[in-house]
Amino acid sequence: MTSAPRLDRARRRMREVGVDVLAVSAGPDLVYLTGYEAMPLERLTMLVLARDGDAVLLVPRLEVPRVDEDTPGFTVEAWDETDDPIERIAKHAGGARVLALGDHVFARDVLALQGSLPDARFVLASHVTSPLRIVKDEAELGALRDAATAVDEIAQDMRGWSFRGRTERAIHRQLIEQILDRGHERANFAIVATGPNAASPHHEPGDRRIEAGDVVLCDFGGTMHGYCSDITRMYAVGDPRAEVRDAYDALLVAQEAAVRAATVGTRCSDVDAVARDSLHDAGLAARFVHRTGHGIGLEAHEDPYLVEGNDRPLEAGHAFSIEPGVYLPGRFGLRLEDIVIATPAGPQRLNHAPRDLAVVD
Amino acid sequence: MTSAPRLDRARRRMREVGVDVLAVSAGPDLVYLTGYEAMPLERLTMLVLARDGDAVLLVPRLEVPRVDEDTPGFTVEAWDETDDPIERIAKHAGGARVLALGDHVFARDVLALQGSLPDARFVLASHVTSPLRIVKDEAELGALRDAATAVDEIAQDMRGWSFRGRTERAIHRQLIEQILDRGHERANFAIVATGPNAASPHHEPGDRRIEAGDVVLCDFGGTMHGYCSDITRMYAVGDPRAEVRDAYDALLVAQEAAVRAATVGTRCSDVDAVARDSLHDAGLAARFVHRTGHGIGLEAHEDPYLVEGNDRPLEAGHAFSIEPGVYLPGRFGLRLEDIVIATPAGPQRLNHAPRDLAVVD
Repeated sequence: MTSAPRLDRARRRMREVGVDVLAVSAGPDLVYLTGYEAMPLERLTMLVLARDGDAVLLVPRLEVPRVDEDTPGFTVEAWDETDDPIERIAKHAGGARVLALGDHVFARDVLALQGSLPDARFVLASHVTSPLRIVKDEAELGALRDAATAVDEIAQDMRGWSFRGRTERAIHRQLIEQILDRGHERANFAIVATGPNAASPHHEPGDRRIEAGDVVLCDFGGTMHGYCSDITRMYAVGDPRAEVRDAYDALLVAQEAAVRAATVGTRCSDVDAVARDSLHDAGLAARFVHRTGHGIGLEAHEDPYLVEGNDRPLEAGHAFSIEPGVYLPGRFGLRLEDIVIATPAGPQRLNHAPRDLAVVD
Repeated sequence: MTSAPRLDRARRRMREVGVDVLAVSAGPDLVYLTGYEAMPLERLTMLVLARDGDAVLLVPRLEVPRVDEDTPGFTVEAWDETDDPIERIAKHAGGARVLALGDHVFARDVLALQGSLPDARFVLASHVTSPLRIVKDEAELGALRDAATAVDEIAQDMRGWSFRGRTERAIHRQLIEQILDRGHERANFAIVATGPNAASPHHEPGDRRIEAGDVVLCDFGGTMHGYCSDITRMYAVGDPRAEVRDAYDALLVAQEAAVRAATVGTRCSDVDAVARDSLHDAGLAARFVHRTGHGIGLEAHEDPYLVEGNDRPLEAGHAFSIEPGVYLPGRFGLRLEDIVIATPAGPQRLNHAPRDLAVVD
């Protein structure tokens, strides 16, 4: 969908929730609404969208050549190195009683805008944009599918890689290269956690050398045509010991159960509970220390979050990860993750790489 | 310097500027004060530092294993998936009349904290942290020097690369790999702008193929041991035409003049004016559409900014880029950048790769 229809949908939503002006800076809301990917540096880029007026994209002069100025729906306005962009935005937003600010606008700009618009009430732009972004259209689903296929190929390929004697960092580096080689424009992360390090869900890859008997957790993804991939697969170096095999079997069952539960109309919290209950039956519930999943799209993590307390029902077109894990401090950790979309015909996995515990060398 | 002395310096500065509580999220202030590099994802990590009390680092439970809990100066507190981290922070900050929020805290968290602490006045953490971070100590200068040496080696090496027939994206990719191969933990950017594309200072590398007669602008850097590198060098594919050569000669003169001007006590704006005046003499002032430079350290761009209007004098230990450029829309663009530190003995360049316009194949 091009920018003009999306801006109009945003305006309709602004009417529903009582927002006069929407102001979003570099980031996914801006990409969604304008197609423009701004540099996330210190010079402010901001779209100012009036509910009942024009849309202006304020851009640092030296970045104007990056913008397609012919995009329908908004005009581009340059600010110079000695201008104050906050003043410009305040001018465009003047008179707004309720201003919705992008969730990722920096405090620096939030406080400055509050100072320049003392009579406005500030709310978050996600009240406007999240309901639009959370339901993916066909083009978005296609982009997510392509990105998922790329990481599937890597995960499959890794079953033939050598792990023994290599460091986490070396595997991490190879993953980053593969993510780029397979067509992503950006590699977002590549967690490689080996042996006891895998008990830390967000382990930073380091100098530990992989040895026989290790299990290796690989959780990686990138951005392709603007949309994110994210997959976790497990590799065992030599035959895994019984406690690892048993825990992995329980994890497989829990992940499958949660995927099957992710039907249109089911509450996010209920999908989380299905994974948790399944691991509870295996005596592992206390080892599952994080939520079951997160939405995915222009951002690696976005709405909907599959977590206790989030009672929002899944809708057709929601895209999210299902990624239960079990973590035994000092011993090992396991996680299994696929991206899933909710459809009227039931949950559809976008990832198809083999899900068994791969035995590698 | 370890975290405890830095936290105490922050407290002293909080006294000077009348701040009761400092609250910073994932990012360079957090790294500076605690040594902890948090993941920049949606789960909030926040250091809450009381001027007259304790320091607490609030971390999502699943990321606690990433933190060195024995670091002196603060305690670590985990929050669970179903907790509200804002409530915890408000409790620790309770009673603060003036709360300094990290400049990069997200609007989402700013508005939530303002709602939870209605009686507090919010200011920016940079009033506290910038004066500390802007003067680099010996260890920081060493890290900046090592990172500069790494990109110098790449820039030197590139004089032997083949450019003709390759795309911007291919050169970009090779640069990213080189940045990692030479010891950076992260590649931050690699602008490759060829022919007329170089007239866009922040050009996004694309599919344009390099041809004879092009000039190629390469501006790249990464993070090594926490500190950033940043260099720009120019490559001409075959002998450059006269207008390119003349403009480049003028740029060399302007950059040299600005580096020499960057002495302790000189105002940032005056360094900018020196570069601008020099290009003015060559009839190119109107083609220099950005500031002369930016500070560098834990961030690729930080204080001090060498820009008109910033009358702060340089001090010993300031580290910054000097990077004038000239941009001729539709034709070509040129930029030359070194990192420089201000010292009592005069400005010292950290980059030493040859600065002439390299003629390559």
